[in-house]
Amino acid sequence: MSLELDEISIQQQFEEVIASEDKLAIQEFLNDQNISDVADLIYENEDYECQIISLLNINRAASVFKIIELPTQKRIIKNLPVIKTTELLNELPADDRVAFLEELPTSIVRDLIKTLDPDERIVTLELLGYPENSMGRIMTPDYVYVYEENTVAEVFQTIRKHARGSETIDVIYVINEKGELLDDIRIRDFILAEPNTKVSDMMDGRFIVLHVTDDQEMASEVFKMNNRVALPVTDKNNILLGIVTIDDILWVAEEEYSEDIQKIGGTEALDEPYLDMPFWKLIRKRAPWLVILFVGELLTASAMSFFEDEIKKVLVLNMLVPLIISSGGNTGSQASTLIIQAMAKAEITIADWFTILKREIKSGLVLGGILGLVGFLRTYMWSYIEPHLYGTHTFLLAMVTGVSVLGVVLWGTLAGSMLPIFLKRMKFDPATSSAPFVATLVDVTGIVIYFSVAYLFLSGVLL
Amino acid sequence: MSLELDEISIQQQFEEVIASEDKLAIQEFLNDQNISDVADLIYENEDYECQIISLLNINRAASVFKIIELPTQKRIIKNLPVIKTTELLNELPADDRVAFLEELPTSIVRDLIKTLDPDERIVTLELLGYPENSMGRIMTPDYVYVYEENTVAEVFQTIRKHARGSETIDVIYVINEKGELLDDIRIRDFILAEPNTKVSDMMDGRFIVLHVTDDQEMASEVFKMNNRVALPVTDKNNILLGIVTIDDILWVAEEEYSEDIQKIGGTEALDEPYLDMPFWKLIRKRAPWLVILFVGELLTASAMSFFEDEIKKVLVLNMLVPLIISSGGNTGSQASTLIIQAMAKAEITIADWFTILKREIKSGLVLGGILGLVGFLRTYMWSYIEPHLYGTHTFLLAMVTGVSVLGVVLWGTLAGSMLPIFLKRMKFDPATSSAPFVATLVDVTGIVIYFSVAYLFLSGVLL
Repeated sequence: MSLELDEISIQQQFEEVIASEDKLAIQEFLNDQNISDVADLIYENEDYECQIISLLNINRAASVFKIIELPTQKRIIKNLPVIKTTELLNELPADDRVAFLEELPTSIVRDLIKTLDPDERIVTLELLGYPENSMGRIMTPDYVYVYEENTVAEVFQTIRKHARGSETIDVIYVINEKGELLDDIRIRDFILAEPNTKVSDMMDGRFIVLHVTDDQEMASEVFKMNNRVALPVTDKNNILLGIVTIDDILWVAEEEYSEDIQKIGGTEALDEPYLDMPFWKLIRKRAPWLVILFVGELLTASAMSFFEDEIKKVLVLNMLVPLIISSGGNTGSQASTLIIQAMAKAEITIADWFTILKREIKSGLVLGGILGLVGFLRTYMWSYIEPHLYGTHTFLLAMVTGVSVLGVVLWGTLAGSMLPIFLKRMKFDPATSSAPFVATLVDVTGIVIYFSVAYLFLSGVLL
Repeated sequence: MSLELDEISIQQQFEEVIASEDKLAIQEFLNDQNISDVADLIYENEDYECQIISLLNINRAASVFKIIELPTQKRIIKNLPVIKTTELLNELPADDRVAFLEELPTSIVRDLIKTLDPDERIVTLELLGYPENSMGRIMTPDYVYVYEENTVAEVFQTIRKHARGSETIDVIYVINEKGELLDDIRIRDFILAEPNTKVSDMMDGRFIVLHVTDDQEMASEVFKMNNRVALPVTDKNNILLGIVTIDDILWVAEEEYSEDIQKIGGTEALDEPYLDMPFWKLIRKRAPWLVILFVGELLTASAMSFFEDEIKKVLVLNMLVPLIISSGGNTGSQASTLIIQAMAKAEITIADWFTILKREIKSGLVLGGILGLVGFLRTYMWSYIEPHLYGTHTFLLAMVTGVSVLGVVLWGTLAGSMLPIFLKRMKFDPATSSAPFVATLVDVTGIVIYFSVAYLFLSGVLL
């Protein structure tokens, strides 16, 4: 896996065996590789992707299919013979099947669902009925359950009967006749127990459940904090509906973080890898925010023309505009990213807003003080290099720079830190207060702060 | 877990039982709760945190200790009686112990390691000897191994003997006398097998290994692609050194993403939660980048004064500076975030740079075209609202705006997308080309592009 050498040689072996055109040899070779290596072979040999999936044992084909990227999945389903598609979809675990179907247009989903066996069809329709991003969509109904009156020996019989079809047997679920969840017990405890021990004697009634409508995002936190590889999913009457395994959560967590990062950068969340995304679809994800920001930024021109007279009188003021406003934009982006990230990790909640406000006022003053000092020194010293620009009131001009930077940075930190909290409070996604968004907001107000400070210091002297 | 109500009542129950001052009752209450709930109790009752840890059964105390945040961990270790600290540290799984110790100053680590039992001390020192962020630091040496000549019945004997002390028994490792890894077999296969089956008959030799010096970041990808709950870690001679479980990877993945997000926002990666981080430490993480960006942005003032004559002659040019440069900054931040994120997910590699370049040239032209058109219209129409500012050559001025926006946006997309790739190529962290960094870079060059375009269109007319 970690040796580049291995991968090259698998590809080479594949090329050799394909060249031999010996179907049995190809089949044997493919069934002998790790599923992640087969996935790599599919990516590297697009012409053979359908053949590879067709030749694999059906259970291994399903394992490979579920880990490859959506565009490749779609292409394979489109090009595979109908009989193979049917076989593959039926073999896919219910949760992975739903994960794939929910990305397709409704009409195709309807056709594909028709090809499923009756049992699988019912399960699939049921899972598709849960809201997007809910636990219902990623749970699997394939788990092993036992009753509290069973003995350990009986439990092992049940496991032997159902193990093949279930996603994990690391945790076994105890339910009653109504289907209510009573406990979860780890396989290791059964292995350590005497065969005639009753399940009821092993129960501690201490278990964590996820609700079927719970958001997927919170599940990652629950898994982290509870050291489990699988968690049961119940409805509001505590009826066990399915289980969620930690490997699915690893995918969810990665998805959530990617979306957050993309939003912070000012794009809509992409649902496909960058390179696989059709060009115009990518543009549609990128353009709207840029246009909104651009229209917002048009206000800078209005703000600037409002201060036309001041600019005319003291041209040097104008030279510093990009510097001043960007210092606010940068601090604002920084603060908003920190807060969005801390909220995503549940380190802070809306209730902490006042603590954060106090902290960011202090931070804004210190950071603004540091940058303001640099700005002061720059203006003061530059006046010796280009005296014609700065004229005689260098100290006053330097003060204007320093104080404006302090003000703009303070305002940037406050806007950047409070905006995500406000958005969350209003039930919007805090990650929408992307770095560019905060920067634009602070740009416009930064101009007003700057020229107001200038007016305050220079009125009667230069203005 | 998901009901707010439950949490409130656990806290209330805790307050009641604490008020009773009945040590046995408190102990019983605490041992009855889920570890994540005990962790919440610790956060909400800082005064009792040491008492809570002391009163828990030692194995549960260790489970709670490993999931709480570092600052709380440190405080508890500091305030706990020495005998309890010793007991707790010895009980902690080796990987979690190392994860805690690596955050402490060396002098304290030395003292704490002295308190460990000889066996645990050797293991700990060994793990601490591996490079930071390597698999060696998060693997655990507590796993169950068997030999290929064992029968299934013997395997179960081994499991019963070692299950208590090992992190997982979901996967059992087959080694030879030299300690070389031969295969990994899932517990379900043993349960399904006949007791007198030989291990050698169950082996398929198909297993995935991580190398002890592999980077932790890549492990998350390997877990995702291979559907395992634990993976073996070997040295370069294929000697089995330990295993890594998927729940540890969930923590690593979250850590990596948080660091990426923070860097994109222009802070150094924080190693503590936002609210727990001491004020001045947070400032030290935030200030350096802001100062660097500010100093970079000082160049905007130089660029502006370079075009002093043009500004004096056509004052309206100047009003549009913030608009023009920010359009480049925003597109640049967007492009860099997209590329950083796609690289973090290994969707693209350095080798794709030319494909990305071609794609971003097209994107830049389209996005720049859209924004340029908005800019053109704004300037053209505004000249009717404020004719004194725009003078007579409105069409030319509108063209300047449109073409500059197109140019600046194109440049922003290119700089934003190529910079992370370049940084990665130079072995730097691509996330360092944070949104503010790209924005600053594009601000300075944007001014030059803008005034050059203006000169081209207006020279001989207005300039």
